[in-house]
Amino acid sequence: MTLPAPLTGVVPPVCTPLTPEREVDVPSLLRLVDHLVEGGVHGLFVLGSTSEAAYLTDRQRRLVVEAVAGHVGGQLPVLAGAIDMTTPRVLDHVREVTRAGAEAVVVTAPFYTSTHPAEIARHYRLVAASSPVPVIAYDLPTAVHTKLPADVILELAAEGVLAGLKDSSGDLSAFRTVVSGARTHPAITGFSVLTGSEVIIDAALAVGADGAVPGLANVDPVGYVRLDALFRAGDRAGARAEQERLCALFGMVGVGDPGRMGGSSSALGAFKAALYLRGVIECPVTAEPQVPLSGGEVEGVGKFLERAGLL
Amino acid sequence: MTLPAPLTGVVPPVCTPLTPEREVDVPSLLRLVDHLVEGGVHGLFVLGSTSEAAYLTDRQRRLVVEAVAGHVGGQLPVLAGAIDMTTPRVLDHVREVTRAGAEAVVVTAPFYTSTHPAEIARHYRLVAASSPVPVIAYDLPTAVHTKLPADVILELAAEGVLAGLKDSSGDLSAFRTVVSGARTHPAITGFSVLTGSEVIIDAALAVGADGAVPGLANVDPVGYVRLDALFRAGDRAGARAEQERLCALFGMVGVGDPGRMGGSSSALGAFKAALYLRGVIECPVTAEPQVPLSGGEVEGVGKFLERAGLL
Amino acid sequence: MTLPAPLTGVVPPVCTPLTPEREVDVPSLLRLVDHLVEGGVHGLFVLGSTSEAAYLTDRQRRLVVEAVAGHVGGQLPVLAGAIDMTTPRVLDHVREVTRAGAEAVVVTAPFYTSTHPAEIARHYRLVAASSPVPVIAYDLPTAVHTKLPADVILELAAEGVLAGLKDSSGDLSAFRTVVSGARTHPAITGFSVLTGSEVIIDAALAVGADGAVPGLANVDPVGYVRLDALFRAGDRAGARAEQERLCALFGMVGVGDPGRMGGSSSALGAFKAALYLRGVIECPVTAEPQVPLSGGEVEGVGKFLERAGLL
Amino acid sequence: MTLPAPLTGVVPPVCTPLTPEREVDVPSLLRLVDHLVEGGVHGLFVLGSTSEAAYLTDRQRRLVVEAVAGHVGGQLPVLAGAIDMTTPRVLDHVREVTRAGAEAVVVTAPFYTSTHPAEIARHYRLVAASSPVPVIAYDLPTAVHTKLPADVILELAAEGVLAGLKDSSGDLSAFRTVVSGARTHPAITGFSVLTGSEVIIDAALAVGADGAVPGLANVDPVGYVRLDALFRAGDRAGARAEQERLCALFGMVGVGDPGRMGGSSSALGAFKAALYLRGVIECPVTAEPQVPLSGGEVEGVGKFLERAGLL
Repeated sequence: MTLPAPLTGVVPPVCTPLTPEREVDVPSLLRLVDHLVEGGVHGLFVLGSTSEAAYLTDRQRRLVVEAVAGHVGGQLPVLAGAIDMTTPRVLDHVREVTRAGAEAVVVTAPFYTSTHPAEIARHYRLVAASSPVPVIAYDLPTAVHTKLPADVILELAAEGVLAGLKDSSGDLSAFRTVVSGARTHPAITGFSVLTGSEVIIDAALAVGADGAVPGLANVDPVGYVRLDALFRAGDRAGARAEQERLCALFGMVGVGDPGRMGGSSSALGAFKAALYLRGVIECPVTAEPQVPLSGGEVEGVGKFLERAGLL
Repeated sequence: MTLPAPLTGVVPPVCTPLTPEREVDVPSLLRLVDHLVEGGVHGLFVLGSTSEAAYLTDRQRRLVVEAVAGHVGGQLPVLAGAIDMTTPRVLDHVREVTRAGAEAVVVTAPFYTSTHPAEIARHYRLVAASSPVPVIAYDLPTAVHTKLPADVILELAAEGVLAGLKDSSGDLSAFRTVVSGARTHPAITGFSVLTGSEVIIDAALAVGADGAVPGLANVDPVGYVRLDALFRAGDRAGARAEQERLCALFGMVGVGDPGRMGGSSSALGAFKAALYLRGVIECPVTAEPQVPLSGGEVEGVGKFLERAGLL
Repeated sequence: MTLPAPLTGVVPPVCTPLTPEREVDVPSLLRLVDHLVEGGVHGLFVLGSTSEAAYLTDRQRRLVVEAVAGHVGGQLPVLAGAIDMTTPRVLDHVREVTRAGAEAVVVTAPFYTSTHPAEIARHYRLVAASSPVPVIAYDLPTAVHTKLPADVILELAAEGVLAGLKDSSGDLSAFRTVVSGARTHPAITGFSVLTGSEVIIDAALAVGADGAVPGLANVDPVGYVRLDALFRAGDRAGARAEQERLCALFGMVGVGDPGRMGGSSSALGAFKAALYLRGVIECPVTAEPQVPLSGGEVEGVGKFLERAGLL
Repeated sequence: MTLPAPLTGVVPPVCTPLTPEREVDVPSLLRLVDHLVEGGVHGLFVLGSTSEAAYLTDRQRRLVVEAVAGHVGGQLPVLAGAIDMTTPRVLDHVREVTRAGAEAVVVTAPFYTSTHPAEIARHYRLVAASSPVPVIAYDLPTAVHTKLPADVILELAAEGVLAGLKDSSGDLSAFRTVVSGARTHPAITGFSVLTGSEVIIDAALAVGADGAVPGLANVDPVGYVRLDALFRAGDRAGARAEQERLCALFGMVGVGDPGRMGGSSSALGAFKAALYLRGVIECPVTAEPQVPLSGGEVEGVGKFLERAGLL
């Protein structure tokens, strides 16, 4: 399936269920995909941060893309992350995930190394030159430790290097600069501007976003699809109310004790615990070296689900 | 060859010469290794940051370790970086580099993901449990974006999880805490504390460092070996003078125009240009997406070599 | 005049015009105040960051508040910043600015010193206990280097310590947490949540902001008042169009050469150049040690004004 | 007394004892000064960070300088901080502290505002042009959030704008660049390079520092003076042993519970508790909004004193 231009709607970054031995649990993964497709989502993004891509080996990454792309069989677009430190390593991932069926690749700026806007632009140009599918830039400063500059994104969009942006920076002002720039630039058409936020999607749509990539949509795809539909139908108040319901549900990411674990253990642990409690996946375990949620913390996730009417 | 405990002296992070097509240039690499061994260095560290490990594909990384370990054949210890985002991915690298002949692995804290001291400790425990060779912690906050806490390092040293520390944090106070803690802790023996600095090795030795891992030793191994020997012979003034000569030479890392490139392009470009000008390697190119030095910038490197009597 | 609870609408942070000798230019200041009042703004915030409070001596700060409060004489509320490093110094400013006529004080978390949420809460409790007027928290992480935690703000709002929040953090997700928390908390009434943004006011209002404190409203108060009115009238598309016009105008903050000056010199220089070009103030100079805009950069500001129909 | 050029030896940043009501306790302050002078220190630095300058009102700052300068009456040089956000405010402090008897002023780069090397240089030039006494740059990135660039310091030293540097950055590499540059630059003479560290003074002296400004010297002036004397006598091993004893004592700064207070509350609270336990000051209280140490934490400080033979 060709990537729509622009891609719109709800495109969840798909969690990667694991067995207790930390192997990819393919049956759970496919149940999760069915749960999302039945929830009405408009695309699937595998091997993103919420997918624990940073924790999966190359073999596991390949397995995930093959399983998901094979299962959905062109019903809806499958995007795959090609997350690594620099261009040569990203090119290897691009080759692997596109062979396995990905219809677009999602790529961050270089990280670990010190970098420069000129090097970021060079990176994306080289990736696009090698990729058989469209390239979407992934702006995630909390992981990458640089912010993708709006002018670089727009320059690369105008050159045809980038097909879209997944913005998880939390900076709606910069996001708006890209949205407006992409709309008004004569050489840019069909560029997808997607927010990675769970909690300000109504606001992002209001400034002109094409869609959203919310990790919490794993847990409540129906809610996010409803929010998107309400907004597109012009019901701003309804969209805001649905967004606020989802904001409350999102509180689950803080369930883990910060004295005992980092933010990733807590947030990804909560999403997986919620999927486990909802009966979608077999085992809520996260990849090493993340710290598992305690029994009490999993119960805490359950309370968020109950209050949201999901349990 | 078994890793000395502690490892002392000068252990350069070996540059990875590339062909114009960005393939590993094995003949140049082996010439560089000979240049270092003849310079009197006490060990070799491949696949570190100065080696552009972040830019090398898995295949290239394997090739580097095989070539170097095969070439030195146990004359001096070969350490290899196993640089990746999280435990499962690091374990894959550990397996590969030890199969290829590495006698110790050098491992950072997790990066890209948000992390926590408990997760860092868990990471190193899992790596050590799987590694057939000693594990050395690599503290590089500019790349990893966390500082390895001294108390975590000492706890893991006391457990036998860590065999040493390569500290590139620039924080000599914290370094001293590890040095003193390792010396006085009853359960710690043979722990290697190495500084990654090029410019304060005399000071690091004075507070108790075992050795140094200076990138600039690629360019002037003889100078760093002399500095180490002078210090060990009790000639503090001589060591300081040699260090100051090397500090001046280190100025080459700023040769690249900061308006046109990042710090990695400039510093690694300068080291490779110097090796090229000294006739050690065939081609000064750095890996993508780094920006190459201009002709004038390469000439600037030459001036640093001249002033240091190396050309 | 008592501070409305909540305070709504457009409350510009009033620029402080200076003479070429860097003394407060009171006639220009009062012309600027008239320009804002005639533009329809709903309150005035003196001694904020846009007012160059950080650059004004205590004597100058007092002069500004006396001049403005005396001039507007209760027509609309006058808020004043009490910007300093810690509680004892802030208390001195609170005493001075309230004596001079301020009807609310705007206070950041401690800065320069290392701090902790418990110390931030203690700080605001002590300030509120001494202040004869309501206290508004000022969240400006780029200056203060901590982010005010949403839970601390809500706790202090519920205690009656804080009357409002001026949020210049750029983080709309955290902003929404405060908005929603203030609306649903049984002990919180009349709490004002104001965004400090120039460019996402429509989005901030859509998530429930009470008003805005945009520096650019010095230049175009009519535009910001129109945006606010359109939004309140339910005309979302009209509000968005007006916001986008103002976003384009805001581009002026980047007019200064980043190789020659910092962001404050450029942004505050641009606002003052615009006020000068519009005939509101006598002299566009900014306080020391900011670098003045060049003639060409001032012309650049003029072009932004022309494109916005303001010249 | 004229400031020696260069200033050498131990120059403690003098704590500011407070009464339970948080007023300056002048009798305790003078006892502390006597304790330092009797300990053999080579100068006194009032209104530094360790002096809680950021927490003192203007009136209190003046009182401190008058009391100390009046008391020591030219026996040894008195330096005073002029800590504020920008040039105009710093100039007011410079005038006040020099009127009150300070023989040098210690000044940071601008903070709170965003800044640029050109603005930092302009700031120091303006301060020096107005100051009747020498100006020493204060590099404290944890408070100021910029690092003073070595090339800017050396340029200003060569112009005669700066008389010295107090470096509390923790970055010994950059410190060495200043030391070496000041020594070799033909236009720089008598420039004082002082480290603000408590724990690597032996190393700083070894790379060429003129002296040290350790906060812990309030607690143990004799120890720091001994360390300095041992080093100058060529007894490197003795100096290192004394430094290591002081490093152990410095552990007291971590006595406060990080869940309950920030680093300033803990470190300054520990120094004052130690002075109280040693009978030098009347009351260990720190300024608002710092959190006081608990009884148990004060006991913890006592244990550090006991182990160091100071109680």
